[in-house]
Amino acid sequence: MLDKYFDELEVGTRAVSRSRTITEADIVMFAAFSGDWYPLHTDKEYAAKTMFGQRVAHGMLVLSVATGLVDMKPGVVAAFYGMDKVRFTAPTFIGDTIRVEAEVLEKSDKGAFGVVTIKQEIKNQRDEVCNSAILKVALNKKPA
Amino acid sequence: MLDKYFDELEVGTRAVSRSRTITEADIVMFAAFSGDWYPLHTDKEYAAKTMFGQRVAHGMLVLSVATGLVDMKPGVVAAFYGMDKVRFTAPTFIGDTIRVEAEVLEKSDKGAFGVVTIKQEIKNQRDEVCNSAILKVALNKKPA
Amino acid sequence: MLDKYFDELEVGTRAVSRSRTITEADIVMFAAFSGDWYPLHTDKEYAAKTMFGQRVAHGMLVLSVATGLVDMKPGVVAAFYGMDKVRFTAPTFIGDTIRVEAEVLEKSDKGAFGVVTIKQEIKNQRDEVCNSAILKVALNKKPA
Amino acid sequence: MLDKYFDELEVGTRAVSRSRTITEADIVMFAAFSGDWYPLHTDKEYAAKTMFGQRVAHGMLVLSVATGLVDMKPGVVAAFYGMDKVRFTAPTFIGDTIRVEAEVLEKSDKGAFGVVTIKQEIKNQRDEVCNSAILKVALNKKPA
Amino acid sequence: MLDKYFDELEVGTRAVSRSRTITEADIVMFAAFSGDWYPLHTDKEYAAKTMFGQRVAHGMLVLSVATGLVDMKPGVVAAFYGMDKVRFTAPTFIGDTIRVEAEVLEKSDKGAFGVVTIKQEIKNQRDEVCNSAILKVALNKKPA
Amino acid sequence: MLDKYFDELEVGTRAVSRSRTITEADIVMFAAFSGDWYPLHTDKEYAAKTMFGQRVAHGMLVLSVATGLVDMKPGVVAAFYGMDKVRFTAPTFIGDTIRVEAEVLEKSDKGAFGVVTIKQEIKNQRDEVCNSAILKVALNKKPA
Repeated sequence: MLDKYFDELEVGTRAVSRSRTITEADIVMFAAFSGDWYPLHTDKEYAAKTMFGQRVAHGMLVLSVATGLVDMKPGVVAAFYGMDKVRFTAPTFIGDTIRVEAEVLEKSDKGAFGVVTIKQEIKNQRDEVCNSAILKVALNKKPA
Repeated sequence: MLDKYFDELEVGTRAVSRSRTITEADIVMFAAFSGDWYPLHTDKEYAAKTMFGQRVAHGMLVLSVATGLVDMKPGVVAAFYGMDKVRFTAPTFIGDTIRVEAEVLEKSDKGAFGVVTIKQEIKNQRDEVCNSAILKVALNKKPA
Repeated sequence: MLDKYFDELEVGTRAVSRSRTITEADIVMFAAFSGDWYPLHTDKEYAAKTMFGQRVAHGMLVLSVATGLVDMKPGVVAAFYGMDKVRFTAPTFIGDTIRVEAEVLEKSDKGAFGVVTIKQEIKNQRDEVCNSAILKVALNKKPA
Repeated sequence: MLDKYFDELEVGTRAVSRSRTITEADIVMFAAFSGDWYPLHTDKEYAAKTMFGQRVAHGMLVLSVATGLVDMKPGVVAAFYGMDKVRFTAPTFIGDTIRVEAEVLEKSDKGAFGVVTIKQEIKNQRDEVCNSAILKVALNKKPA
Repeated sequence: MLDKYFDELEVGTRAVSRSRTITEADIVMFAAFSGDWYPLHTDKEYAAKTMFGQRVAHGMLVLSVATGLVDMKPGVVAAFYGMDKVRFTAPTFIGDTIRVEAEVLEKSDKGAFGVVTIKQEIKNQRDEVCNSAILKVALNKKPA
Repeated sequence: MLDKYFDELEVGTRAVSRSRTITEADIVMFAAFSGDWYPLHTDKEYAAKTMFGQRVAHGMLVLSVATGLVDMKPGVVAAFYGMDKVRFTAPTFIGDTIRVEAEVLEKSDKGAFGVVTIKQEIKNQRDEVCNSAILKVALNKKPA
């Protein structure tokens, strides 16, 4: 969806990304990178005793992977403004395969560029929504 | 701040985290992990021609690093509910050093556990706010 | 180029990829991953005394990065057959920014799928060809 | 084999490397480093439906790991010229253990240094050839 | 334990760290980082034939992870002097979960700072001691 | 030195390893892997105010890299027993290039295998000793 200029997107435009399997290696690498070694993610003895029963991927891991699943085209994205209503609605376990589904909710023309409001859902192979969020991204207009 | 149980935190409790310098290696590693190689982050020729004039850390990198800067104590955090009003307000460049400042805005007792609403600001060594967000986290109560 | 099915490509079709800056971190990470710590790549005292005068990216690093620069579409690529005439024609130094330019040389219909022969050149920001190669890739046909 | 100077190698000299098990973590790390997240390598649902029936290591991963399995001695290798007839002849699956077998095919004295032509086969624990290639490497002569 | 200034620790003070599960990914990443690809750690065919019967984590991996399990407070640690009687007393296998138990054995006031001698034991989920060591660390005194 | 069987080494045998430059990326990757983000290593503002004046590599980073610099031959090393008198005697800064110098101090025949006591010094490009240690390693005897 981020491979189209502001003027190429319409309210209602939808896109589905490719998918990626979240592995044990991903959780270890994200814990390492972020420094977040909370035992729910990285201690299997601890995780086994929680309501989840096993290690769970970090919420920010899932959000971060989502940004890389979405196709982006150089020159299109000007800046990432922010997110609203980010909700982690289901856990992502080792071996789950996630994808991103997105829909343009609003467009706001700012002259030289525009801002799109996108509803993003991250779903797993069981079609459960793991995370939903509203994204605001500044997009360039198509060069003449 | 996430090293205290629900009943140990008060509305208005504040905390400042340790700091971490964001390096070129961090940007490369986050691009690799997330799969987000947008050239603003990873192509120095491209970045030089944008309004930023140089490569910029991914917004999700900054948010992810923030989660690891905050002290967490095993057993305290039950689940990460979500975020609201996440705004990227200043770029993070290679060599910037960031920290997290947080304050408890609200507490909501749910019986067996509680939910805290936290205002989080990520600041750099020039005391600029790079990102602000409202976090909702479910915390356990202190074991008897 | 690998985002198009066999029947969507023509002999002579050309494509240019996005670009990526090769950093010191990339060389360290590739040395680590591959296990190839040859000092031309990872010992700056040693490299300073060679004809290159500084550390040089591994040839296989450059080839590996190239595979990720090329757009690929799930379902299109069936298998990677091989390469011919792979030649490293210029060194890649820390800070160089590389891209891939490709052209379809031949198409061979195999019935259920097809094999394309691609001339690939990896170029840096000075438009020098760092590596040239002939690739053979099996592509699926567009689903009905 | 690359731990011997040009004048220490003979046509017909053979060598077998140590072995390395290719893990799920290796595939994730190579996808991350290279940026090649093609779902045959990184989406287990997708891979299950291909002719391979499971995730397959990237061809370039196998070639890259091979370069690190071969013993190299500082000062011996002057430059990596290129490869010919690179063929991926069998898939490498998660858990396979690969090694490199090499034989000097030709030597060409260039005065100050020499070029050796090497036949390289990458084999797994079932002695299947996963990749074969002809390598051309410039080697220094033994210092007096 | 390293989150307390020299004057806040007493001989006999004890601490137990959080725990971390050592995964196959950790062993691959440590082999990559350190360059130590000894097949006992990274070749499952080889490891199966040793007295351990399976791959074993590097001793230095276990020691390195231990340093990150211990809580440290910015400003407290002045320098890491060294270690004595470092003994690897039990193997760490893929899937084991380790923690650090430490006790202050001696304190030596050096005027502006102090040196503490710490007995450190790294234990797994079966309460076996995998490594024991005596550490010497220079700690700052509490700022007035 | 660890590429020779117990009966191939003599008391007094010496060896010098290849060298490796320690980069900013190495420090970030080791902080990530180990979880040790102590600001002396990872916060350049903090480090600038210490007696070192800049970021310093972790002691365990230096020791870990040393294990990978030493040549090891599959089948030779049976087990790593431990270390004594490990002393960090000079800091390793970003850009320093380190090597390992080792000498066999003692040999002890245990029948089926033997234990060697090795004096190891890690030196930088200025020939300063950064770390010295006594290692004890169990080595196999040469197969008949």
